[in-house]
Amino acid sequence: MASFNIIPLNELVLQFEKLPGIGKKTAQRLALNILEQPPERAEKFAEALINARRKIRFCSVCQGLTDMEVCSVCSDVNRDKSVICVVAEPKDVIAFEKIREFNGTYHVLHGVISPMDNISPNDLRIKELMTRLSDGSVKEIIMATNPTVEGEATASYISRLVKPMGIKVTRLAYGVPVGSDLEYADEFTLARALQGRNEI
Amino acid sequence: MASFNIIPLNELVLQFEKLPGIGKKTAQRLALNILEQPPERAEKFAEALINARRKIRFCSVCQGLTDMEVCSVCSDVNRDKSVICVVAEPKDVIAFEKIREFNGTYHVLHGVISPMDNISPNDLRIKELMTRLSDGSVKEIIMATNPTVEGEATASYISRLVKPMGIKVTRLAYGVPVGSDLEYADEFTLARALQGRNEI
Repeated sequence: MASFNIIPLNELVLQFEKLPGIGKKTAQRLALNILEQPPERAEKFAEALINARRKIRFCSVCQGLTDMEVCSVCSDVNRDKSVICVVAEPKDVIAFEKIREFNGTYHVLHGVISPMDNISPNDLRIKELMTRLSDGSVKEIIMATNPTVEGEATASYISRLVKPMGIKVTRLAYGVPVGSDLEYADEFTLARALQGRNEI
Repeated sequence: MASFNIIPLNELVLQFEKLPGIGKKTAQRLALNILEQPPERAEKFAEALINARRKIRFCSVCQGLTDMEVCSVCSDVNRDKSVICVVAEPKDVIAFEKIREFNGTYHVLHGVISPMDNISPNDLRIKELMTRLSDGSVKEIIMATNPTVEGEATASYISRLVKPMGIKVTRLAYGVPVGSDLEYADEFTLARALQGRNEI
């Protein structure tokens, strides 16, 4: 088995294979692609990996990703600090920023409450959220966890903590996705879309 | 756009996006996966990239991939040096080695003749193949280029060069793939399978 004797190739294939959604065949294709290109390509890729992992940390305010002490949203004087959108993962912040509709700030929980996976409220960045709410400047928190059982449970847990402080708690609207076909909407989604109907 | 201000993240996403078959969304998912894991993961990945690109070169005999001067197939005394399987790309050697059926050696052309892409015989490692054939020890070459127009053209070009030297030239069998459904075989494949039928 000649190919399996090329240890540096096997090691690169292995590293690609560890990525989520990348199988053995794809990993081999990606590794060979690196070999086909100038050495600078591999060097820049390696540098980007090291750089990203070393420089990116969690924002000390919102716990989102940043390469600074405080992220660009939290340090932006034009963002409305009285509204906090609470999300489960850093990638959710990226999704919200893409739509360019939200001018408040974020709070990243780094997970959702899930007894099945042994994730309790203490494992999430809820303490950091409560600290942010303690000075009374926040008027609303928008619970933007996923519309799953765990996401719901997390939203209502935090809601119960925050409401007694006199802060408004809202939840993302449920409904039929834009551009989708009603025929394929599941019954729960359709029922929620009906309950949440708006006058036009 | 907060996320787009995290330069080290953008750079890592960009590097993943340059890989074949990896789109923007997947690249972002892969980059975030690196950030979620311990720094050692990124460091090992970076090291594997640099190592593979620096240490792997082309075997001075068969032009296949190796981290030595001569690859493990060419330097193996148990391999039959009188048979050379000629392939287009290094990955084809890996494919043949996986089936554990072939005990000869390989020659990697690094491409196929393709006037459309401006690839002429001089751009391929044909000269190196002819050098290997010059001492008269090779009895057969198996043309194992892809069953495409370019693969065929390359096979017959090399065949015309080699046959006058008294060396047997063979071509991989065409036919219906094992486990496939005849109904879905294209007419050319089916015609070739009929022409190449064997007595059972």
